[in-house]
Amino acid sequence: MTNSSTNMRLKLPITCFILEIILIILFGVLVVYDHDTDAKLFNKNMKINNSTAGGHSGHGSGTSDDTDYRNDFYYRYPSFQDVHVMIFIGFGFLMTFLQRYGFSSVGFNFLIAALSLQWATLMQGFFHGLHEDGKIHIGVESMINADFCTGSVLISFGAVLGKTSPLQLLIMAVFEVTLFAVNEFILLSILGTRDAGGSMTIHTFGAYFGLMVTRILYRPNLEQSKHKNSSVYHSDLFAMIGTIYLWMFWPSFNSAVTAHGDPQHRTAMNTYYSLAACTLSTYAMSSLTAHDGKLDMVHIQNAALAGGVAAGTAGEMMLTPFGSMIVGFLAGIISVLGFKYLSPILEAKLKIQDTCGVHNLHGMPGILGAIVGAVTAAVVPKEVYGNGLEKVFPDVASGERETSDQAGMQAISLAITLAIAIFGGLIVGFILKLPVLGAPRDNACYEDSVYWEVPGEEHHEEELNAVRTEETEHINS
Amino acid sequence: MTNSSTNMRLKLPITCFILEIILIILFGVLVVYDHDTDAKLFNKNMKINNSTAGGHSGHGSGTSDDTDYRNDFYYRYPSFQDVHVMIFIGFGFLMTFLQRYGFSSVGFNFLIAALSLQWATLMQGFFHGLHEDGKIHIGVESMINADFCTGSVLISFGAVLGKTSPLQLLIMAVFEVTLFAVNEFILLSILGTRDAGGSMTIHTFGAYFGLMVTRILYRPNLEQSKHKNSSVYHSDLFAMIGTIYLWMFWPSFNSAVTAHGDPQHRTAMNTYYSLAACTLSTYAMSSLTAHDGKLDMVHIQNAALAGGVAAGTAGEMMLTPFGSMIVGFLAGIISVLGFKYLSPILEAKLKIQDTCGVHNLHGMPGILGAIVGAVTAAVVPKEVYGNGLEKVFPDVASGERETSDQAGMQAISLAITLAIAIFGGLIVGFILKLPVLGAPRDNACYEDSVYWEVPGEEHHEEELNAVRTEETEHINS
Amino acid sequence: MTNSSTNMRLKLPITCFILEIILIILFGVLVVYDHDTDAKLFNKNMKINNSTAGGHSGHGSGTSDDTDYRNDFYYRYPSFQDVHVMIFIGFGFLMTFLQRYGFSSVGFNFLIAALSLQWATLMQGFFHGLHEDGKIHIGVESMINADFCTGSVLISFGAVLGKTSPLQLLIMAVFEVTLFAVNEFILLSILGTRDAGGSMTIHTFGAYFGLMVTRILYRPNLEQSKHKNSSVYHSDLFAMIGTIYLWMFWPSFNSAVTAHGDPQHRTAMNTYYSLAACTLSTYAMSSLTAHDGKLDMVHIQNAALAGGVAAGTAGEMMLTPFGSMIVGFLAGIISVLGFKYLSPILEAKLKIQDTCGVHNLHGMPGILGAIVGAVTAAVVPKEVYGNGLEKVFPDVASGERETSDQAGMQAISLAITLAIAIFGGLIVGFILKLPVLGAPRDNACYEDSVYWEVPGEEHHEEELNAVRTEETEHINS
Repeated sequence: MTNSSTNMRLKLPITCFILEIILIILFGVLVVYDHDTDAKLFNKNMKINNSTAGGHSGHGSGTSDDTDYRNDFYYRYPSFQDVHVMIFIGFGFLMTFLQRYGFSSVGFNFLIAALSLQWATLMQGFFHGLHEDGKIHIGVESMINADFCTGSVLISFGAVLGKTSPLQLLIMAVFEVTLFAVNEFILLSILGTRDAGGSMTIHTFGAYFGLMVTRILYRPNLEQSKHKNSSVYHSDLFAMIGTIYLWMFWPSFNSAVTAHGDPQHRTAMNTYYSLAACTLSTYAMSSLTAHDGKLDMVHIQNAALAGGVAAGTAGEMMLTPFGSMIVGFLAGIISVLGFKYLSPILEAKLKIQDTCGVHNLHGMPGILGAIVGAVTAAVVPKEVYGNGLEKVFPDVASGERETSDQAGMQAISLAITLAIAIFGGLIVGFILKLPVLGAPRDNACYEDSVYWEVPGEEHHEEELNAVRTEETEHINS
Repeated sequence: MTNSSTNMRLKLPITCFILEIILIILFGVLVVYDHDTDAKLFNKNMKINNSTAGGHSGHGSGTSDDTDYRNDFYYRYPSFQDVHVMIFIGFGFLMTFLQRYGFSSVGFNFLIAALSLQWATLMQGFFHGLHEDGKIHIGVESMINADFCTGSVLISFGAVLGKTSPLQLLIMAVFEVTLFAVNEFILLSILGTRDAGGSMTIHTFGAYFGLMVTRILYRPNLEQSKHKNSSVYHSDLFAMIGTIYLWMFWPSFNSAVTAHGDPQHRTAMNTYYSLAACTLSTYAMSSLTAHDGKLDMVHIQNAALAGGVAAGTAGEMMLTPFGSMIVGFLAGIISVLGFKYLSPILEAKLKIQDTCGVHNLHGMPGILGAIVGAVTAAVVPKEVYGNGLEKVFPDVASGERETSDQAGMQAISLAITLAIAIFGGLIVGFILKLPVLGAPRDNACYEDSVYWEVPGEEHHEEELNAVRTEETEHINS
Repeated sequence: MTNSSTNMRLKLPITCFILEIILIILFGVLVVYDHDTDAKLFNKNMKINNSTAGGHSGHGSGTSDDTDYRNDFYYRYPSFQDVHVMIFIGFGFLMTFLQRYGFSSVGFNFLIAALSLQWATLMQGFFHGLHEDGKIHIGVESMINADFCTGSVLISFGAVLGKTSPLQLLIMAVFEVTLFAVNEFILLSILGTRDAGGSMTIHTFGAYFGLMVTRILYRPNLEQSKHKNSSVYHSDLFAMIGTIYLWMFWPSFNSAVTAHGDPQHRTAMNTYYSLAACTLSTYAMSSLTAHDGKLDMVHIQNAALAGGVAAGTAGEMMLTPFGSMIVGFLAGIISVLGFKYLSPILEAKLKIQDTCGVHNLHGMPGILGAIVGAVTAAVVPKEVYGNGLEKVFPDVASGERETSDQAGMQAISLAITLAIAIFGGLIVGFILKLPVLGAPRDNACYEDSVYWEVPGEEHHEEELNAVRTEETEHINS
């Protein structure tokens, strides 16, 4: 045992064990299967259905019930898996662009996501889902929501990437998940705000929370690690795996928890076109803002995704592909401009060291998405939705409010989200300053070897030649 | 601003912006939601259904309608996402095999795909889908078709890989998408040809179009870049990511737009077995054609996929797994032989510099697939299909034509496809010769740094040792 | 032609061709489409349904039949594709951690998987699925089962990784698939054991089979290749691609062949929470067992997956998320301890050279999963399942046996699996010792260049500088 503060030998295991044991106990006390995952509940009408519907069932497996296809699993599980890939591959590999921080990017992403999704199940269940029996009922939709909340934590991780210990990240995750659930509860349950893809609840919240944390953790001497805060050729390719997966599956992300039927379908399609338009404007701006017209991988890896963020609120509305493309187009422009001109200012003037530029990918596009959501709610007449109105704006369909009220709620929700994120990030940032949490020193940031066993380098040529020589000798003998 | 022709600073942004703005305007004028993505249309019978069907709905989300599960989204969206992965990860990473062209392979793939899918939506909608209201109605099936058309452009990209500027690629994409839509319209709408997985419309078309383009763009002095037209160890591993994703999801590709029910199911299964058989013959041929019996990554990365291409037309027919395996087996053999013996001849004699060997992966297997489709249509009696005939051969089911007529149409369609592809590629090749488009010089092909900011190399060991030393000192202090 | 035993020029092609031709012939004789893939069978009631159900169908594609959504394709194909990704990307890339064995890891994985899934279709069909017509009827469920069987072979591959020729692996696959099918038949068909996610049939079987094979192939002089039996920085990142995909899609793996409806849903969710808990305990144990508290990539890459293995039997039961998390938590602990302390003992004392540590990832967690399955079957009262009992324990629901009998069967099944795996691995190990099979020499293990054309190394900087210089000159001229 050493007394180096970055030695995690006792701190990390103890924290993980305690957190996991608390989670297990709380799950044991509070969590039960919901209607569609519980064997008894889901099949309680099985015989009745069979007798009335009359014999459709039963070819093939013999266990197919007449209503099995109505299980929410079949509506949402493919979307869930796409979201899951975004959380673990998308976010994880997007952050591997740093030359010596790949293990931590994928590995800490993995650790804090695994923690967050469990804690999020409890927090979200506690706020939104407590049933009359006092229990949290869970199924595929709660898994998606837990992954969503996790995404918010990973956005904040992007802001502090390279400058925090795994222990700090675990603590941050616990607090951020909790605040996320509070904000989400206020927006979705109290105010009746619509935000299916989370422009506000996930992206704006995660970005500004993370920006505040990194502000509080400001390191004036970070230039000691500056040479490692950059990519190398292969690390940029690994990062593109993350980018492309996020890009491809964003339609699933935005549509994963919308109502069944046309809203899921429409949201996925709107997001698809928003992202396509965003990609064109990203490439254009990346080339335009470089003195020699060369494309910058940082922009491609990040700004091309802003169209997904910006379609997160209005995606389920009757935004039209036309509207979606305008939104995506603007998001790409804003995001590249942010990377090129705003981020250096934020660092120099506001002391915000935003490693991944989450302000440009999640912050500003998230706010754009919130505004687009409010405007779309206001300007599209409710007649456009017909009977489908209650799937998108249930409070308007029930006559409880007008579309203009809904738009107002959407705008207020953005302000609330910003307030909770900024205030929350401030508090949590101070908590993370505790020396016992083992942050790396200023000259050891962006470096895997502080927290990981790192293998030596290959010596290809020599070995290869050795083998080839032997092989040849063997063949010739 | 410099006068170097490869400087894209104004050309690329202007082109991207103009194209995207045109796309947005045309979408605004022409494109509307289809039945399954429009809130009003999809839910117009909601109340009627509820009253007649009586109360199945409503457990869980409260928004589940009695017919939500009939939305085409649930039949096709998982397949769409698999196709999407093939287009962006599959094609993109397959081409990263070049040692210094990974940014361009993934990045240009990303750019031209994002453009093509938007343009394809319009072109395909214009030819196949204009409704009585003069609008293009879109949903998940049009997204899949747009991705398919994009795939064709990316095949052509493979032929010219490393030798073109992003501007040339954008121009090529605009023309190729248009011609693709014309050819597809002639085949599917006028002739009633069946080609669900696109052996003809996608693979044969894309390959021969690209081969003609690269023929016109012939570079006699390309050997100046020869040392970069090869792989390194890790670039071959990145390429395998592309290969494996293409291989795994090809069953989804071929089945994505077939009729609901058995055809989707059967097509996926036929393709699965075709690919498995193809993999065995590819490994066998790769080893057999090497003087020392060693496997060649080029073959594994490409030829193992030929079974998917060759099952693209007949996959939805009653080809049987047995037939599919024969087709895949032959496709693998043909493809490896093409890489080994035909490609060098094409380059030396016909001046066709086919970077990725698309003739071997898409060209010949595409023709094989077209022939297999015609033969299968001819030899399988229509009784084998029973009531399912109209899902596969609607014109035969309606009595409009016999299976032999269908087979004839399939064969004619191959000839038409080849003609349009070759003639189109010829014209477009000449257009791409415009010097203003900024092609790289002969000694700067296969090189990312012409169009990309490329990071420096890592210096792991030194830094690592520095950190370790400091760490140790810190611990001991 | 040389006389080096590792030259595969004739052996590998001949073996591949003969195996594939046998497969094709047997498929021609024995395999037919099942109800849901056959055009005639699936649509035989099409008209009757249309007339009775009355006009729901037909919006959109025109080919949508009233019962198309009941095709098993829509229940299982998304899960199938997730499993497929696990088999080809997950297993393939997980094994790329070795510095110079990436081509073989992904490439041999690809080859033996493509063979195994075809052979498995026949063997499993022969044992479980022969219909009254003497044919094997196949559809998406048989594809999943074939992939499952393939997974077992790939687990065994992990034990011998780096020490076998592709020819040895093909021979091993043929025998192992056969024995897998025998064991699976005894368990699932004769004993009525439940093992949807294959804790026993896939993981325990594959692990102990592979461990016996590697025991028989023991190499006393393997330290001659020791310097290559380790990772480098980027190979560990490639391996994380495999890990994360396995981790994400394990819920699909365990639920892919469970009954429709709640069991699929519940299994996926149980596995999700088991894996999350396992990840926390893996990180904790990895740090705790390192003298400097640093995380070890070997543990993260492997032990974090043990929660999926351990939930393979009980996942479909009413295990509850609480129970699942306890299981995952324990699995992670056991697995890390195995890597850290047991593997060295197995190698030193029992002469078991287990390259990937499959005993720690699949062996012990598989046994744990089997035990958890037996205990869960015993302790959860059948009333908890209500009408859903027949989907999980059909023999209990039919009154044929009690839950305690079921539990007994589960326990007996573990013993049978271990017996067949160990005895089978013993025999097959001796077969693989045949010198003609071309195993690599002791000093050429873990080395791609024995069986693959391996490209030279890049020389980035020089070339890059050359290009930059020329570029600059050109611009200035």
